[in-house]
Amino acid sequence: MDDFYIGQEVSVEKTFGKDEVLAFSELTGDCNPLHIDDGFAKNSRFGATIVHGMFVAGLISKVIGMQLPGEGSIYLEQNMRFLKPVYVGDCVTAKVKIKDIMQEKKIFTLETNVYGNDGTCFVSGTAKVLYEGEL
Amino acid sequence: MDDFYIGQEVSVEKTFGKDEVLAFSELTGDCNPLHIDDGFAKNSRFGATIVHGMFVAGLISKVIGMQLPGEGSIYLEQNMRFLKPVYVGDCVTAKVKIKDIMQEKKIFTLETNVYGNDGTCFVSGTAKVLYEGEL
Repeated sequence: MDDFYIGQEVSVEKTFGKDEVLAFSELTGDCNPLHIDDGFAKNSRFGATIVHGMFVAGLISKVIGMQLPGEGSIYLEQNMRFLKPVYVGDCVTAKVKIKDIMQEKKIFTLETNVYGNDGTCFVSGTAKVLYEGEL
Repeated sequence: MDDFYIGQEVSVEKTFGKDEVLAFSELTGDCNPLHIDDGFAKNSRFGATIVHGMFVAGLISKVIGMQLPGEGSIYLEQNMRFLKPVYVGDCVTAKVKIKDIMQEKKIFTLETNVYGNDGTCFVSGTAKVLYEGEL
């Protein structure tokens, strides 16, 4: 626990490819045509297919579970505001930053945001995670 | 919009199978052994492999995007508390219920909970969704 400090952060980039978005649709059953049908999405308010919000959230979850705090993290809460859509093919960066550490209870409060290359914030949020150390 | 009313709800059941949890790990890159390694999970505080919180959340997302309000829903917010782990192989029920409708802005506030067969609440939360009607 002593290796962690408030303000510590990790960033991870990911491009959401078409095949992955299709696979996410199949796996979750969320087959909204906005995510998977190019022709349909072209005529929508978005103009092109967009990534499922929960798939973008999966990137946050990965960073928490694999890097900060890392393996052994158990999700207690995740709050998210979806500010702008991530388009299929977009490269985004998930940033997880420690806001608070409750040493006794081993609970971390984290800022969890997803940005575009130009600094646009797509998803803003916070998480609470229980972390009892390396597995 | 007139077909919707406060208190309206939809429930959807799902069993999270081992293969799906493996597929979710691969797709998101969240390869925490608690989710995918039986031997490891057996010796953990959980005693068996558990489903990614964000995969369980995907079921909520599916119900919103496909059923209530349905296709054309755009996620604005999703807040979740993960109260208990869902084990791989567990059958759960996601319930989405309309708490409030802002007619002018076309914004729905939804209760989004996930229950076990015995009524245990695994995930409790709320969502805000913009819905402009059938796609």
